[in-house]
Amino acid sequence: MTLDDIVASIRPADRQAKEAAMRRQRRLTKPPGSLGRLEDIAVQLAGIFGTEQPTARNTTVIVAAADHGVVAQGVTGYPQAVTAQMVLNFLAGGAAVSVMARARGANLIIVDAGVATPLPAHPDLRVVSAGRGTRDMTQGPAMTREQAEACISAGVGFALDAAEQGAHIIATGDMGIGNTTAASTITAALTGTPPRLTTGRGTGRSDPELQHKIACVERALDVNRPDADDGVDVLRTVGGFEIGVLAGVILGGALARRAVVLDGFVSGAAALIAHSLCPRILDYLIAGHQSAEPGHRVALRHLGLQPLLNLDMRLGEGTGALLATGLIEVAAACLSDMATFAEAGVSDRPTTDLAEAST
Amino acid sequence: MTLDDIVASIRPADRQAKEAAMRRQRRLTKPPGSLGRLEDIAVQLAGIFGTEQPTARNTTVIVAAADHGVVAQGVTGYPQAVTAQMVLNFLAGGAAVSVMARARGANLIIVDAGVATPLPAHPDLRVVSAGRGTRDMTQGPAMTREQAEACISAGVGFALDAAEQGAHIIATGDMGIGNTTAASTITAALTGTPPRLTTGRGTGRSDPELQHKIACVERALDVNRPDADDGVDVLRTVGGFEIGVLAGVILGGALARRAVVLDGFVSGAAALIAHSLCPRILDYLIAGHQSAEPGHRVALRHLGLQPLLNLDMRLGEGTGALLATGLIEVAAACLSDMATFAEAGVSDRPTTDLAEAST
Repeated sequence: MTLDDIVASIRPADRQAKEAAMRRQRRLTKPPGSLGRLEDIAVQLAGIFGTEQPTARNTTVIVAAADHGVVAQGVTGYPQAVTAQMVLNFLAGGAAVSVMARARGANLIIVDAGVATPLPAHPDLRVVSAGRGTRDMTQGPAMTREQAEACISAGVGFALDAAEQGAHIIATGDMGIGNTTAASTITAALTGTPPRLTTGRGTGRSDPELQHKIACVERALDVNRPDADDGVDVLRTVGGFEIGVLAGVILGGALARRAVVLDGFVSGAAALIAHSLCPRILDYLIAGHQSAEPGHRVALRHLGLQPLLNLDMRLGEGTGALLATGLIEVAAACLSDMATFAEAGVSDRPTTDLAEAST
Repeated sequence: MTLDDIVASIRPADRQAKEAAMRRQRRLTKPPGSLGRLEDIAVQLAGIFGTEQPTARNTTVIVAAADHGVVAQGVTGYPQAVTAQMVLNFLAGGAAVSVMARARGANLIIVDAGVATPLPAHPDLRVVSAGRGTRDMTQGPAMTREQAEACISAGVGFALDAAEQGAHIIATGDMGIGNTTAASTITAALTGTPPRLTTGRGTGRSDPELQHKIACVERALDVNRPDADDGVDVLRTVGGFEIGVLAGVILGGALARRAVVLDGFVSGAAALIAHSLCPRILDYLIAGHQSAEPGHRVALRHLGLQPLLNLDMRLGEGTGALLATGLIEVAAACLSDMATFAEAGVSDRPTTDLAEAST
């Protein structure tokens, strides 16, 4: 399938199922609206899965890792080797996302989308190998258009595989030293927001370091002039291999009609790219959490998404998305498994559903 | 044990374990602070359980139900019979809290703390039976001091039982038609806040009905003049049987050194009572969520607690607390099970822990 075919095949959510779910919500044994955002999420899930009683139990989190040439500009405090070291930590089960996936019973898929340090083969590691890290985007495009399309296409495949293997929820995660710089640039390009508002401290930088990072984002935009109407061009010029894979995961999740739960800032940048290719993906997206990175707020506002959690997290790896999946599972279970007033013999308020309540 | 003995036996959390946990957090394979509030919660759990590697997997949610004489004033839209009907719904597994407890693998304990409608015996129903609903607090005290103390004492016992049976987390929940009126009055009394700021729409009232509800709260305070320095007196004059049981659950959870996760507004009112009897309980309390009821914000501010979730929920039953337990479990797992930089061979930032990272 070409990217155009994929985009054309993504369908909107099922409106009739959503309406049936909304009617069902009003019959459940609780005051109307009292489950707040869980009710909205449950209705969205009904639309995604095409049933008024959806299930959202099985989660696969896809964590894409890659390196970034822009680290040559000194935009981050960690050495580039950490990307590969953390991939090994994911595979060994010691990283935050590994621990969370075990606690949540989620399936964890790690993707080497283009890590600079060679990694040993591992049965749980999928390899895209678009390259050994992107080129420095302050000097020219981060990658070729072929690399950008290959990353997206691989991501679509991972999401389709996960769906076929039974995932109701596909959560996104990232690892890549320097990738908040790419996310800041993508967010600036696709939302038309000045870099100073889309660029944050990443893994914790001083004020002068932050100013330097903002200057690098500005230079990358200046040098490359990404085409804001073409997500692939933005990915090619100022993106990252893992961000391309995640944009593909998001498109693939929508194509497979699964709930796609976004992690923080880097996943948000991937969603901006996917959205520029296919606005219909919004029906399938749930923002897992609000990252502490300021650019994430800009990205979510552009997408019109309201995050479920706000816990001042800024780790990436899919941790914020995975945490949110617990809430999403419960939202679906309440809609699908709660008793109605009639079933439970509970009186509804006389002013609303008297006929039903009196049965 | 008398109430005084219980209060005297509640110990502060383990400061040394908290400090060890904070040191451990800095060695884990993530940028310092990047798990945000999860790190604070994990450190609190270390203090509660007296170990730098705490576990918070097993949850028992204790849902106390009772009726309120103040419904005679027309403060709520649902008939009083709904309290008993919902207890039966809890026991049959059809209520939101039942569905959530199943999804979370939590143990659910239902307490008849004083429901007006007689309930059939059920193996999963604990009976306190302080009375068949409180008296109308706008006409005089809601209960006797003996009833108030019996409720608290029973709640302590439920928490100690849950702890003995292996619960790491004790979550609170409530059911009682009219109990947001009691919670509003308790919150006004114990925080010194005007009733118009502690009183909300409950299960959804019109503006004139809200004004009437505020007037009832004002009258209850006027008629009873609860002693704000004595939580038992506040419970006696303007409380509810289920609120007394929950105040006891909170004290008992602290006594047993368990994490106590508060649900919304009614649980918050119970926490205010427990706090007025023993401020040390704060070491053990976690606010599960921010209820949509305005008085809940007042109560949490008074207690200095910041809620984990804010999903516009206002159902009670322990639903907000149960949802939050998933986050708390993960917080503990990350602190206890993540690899350190040294264990995983991951480089820390040169500026922070070079000696350790280079091993």
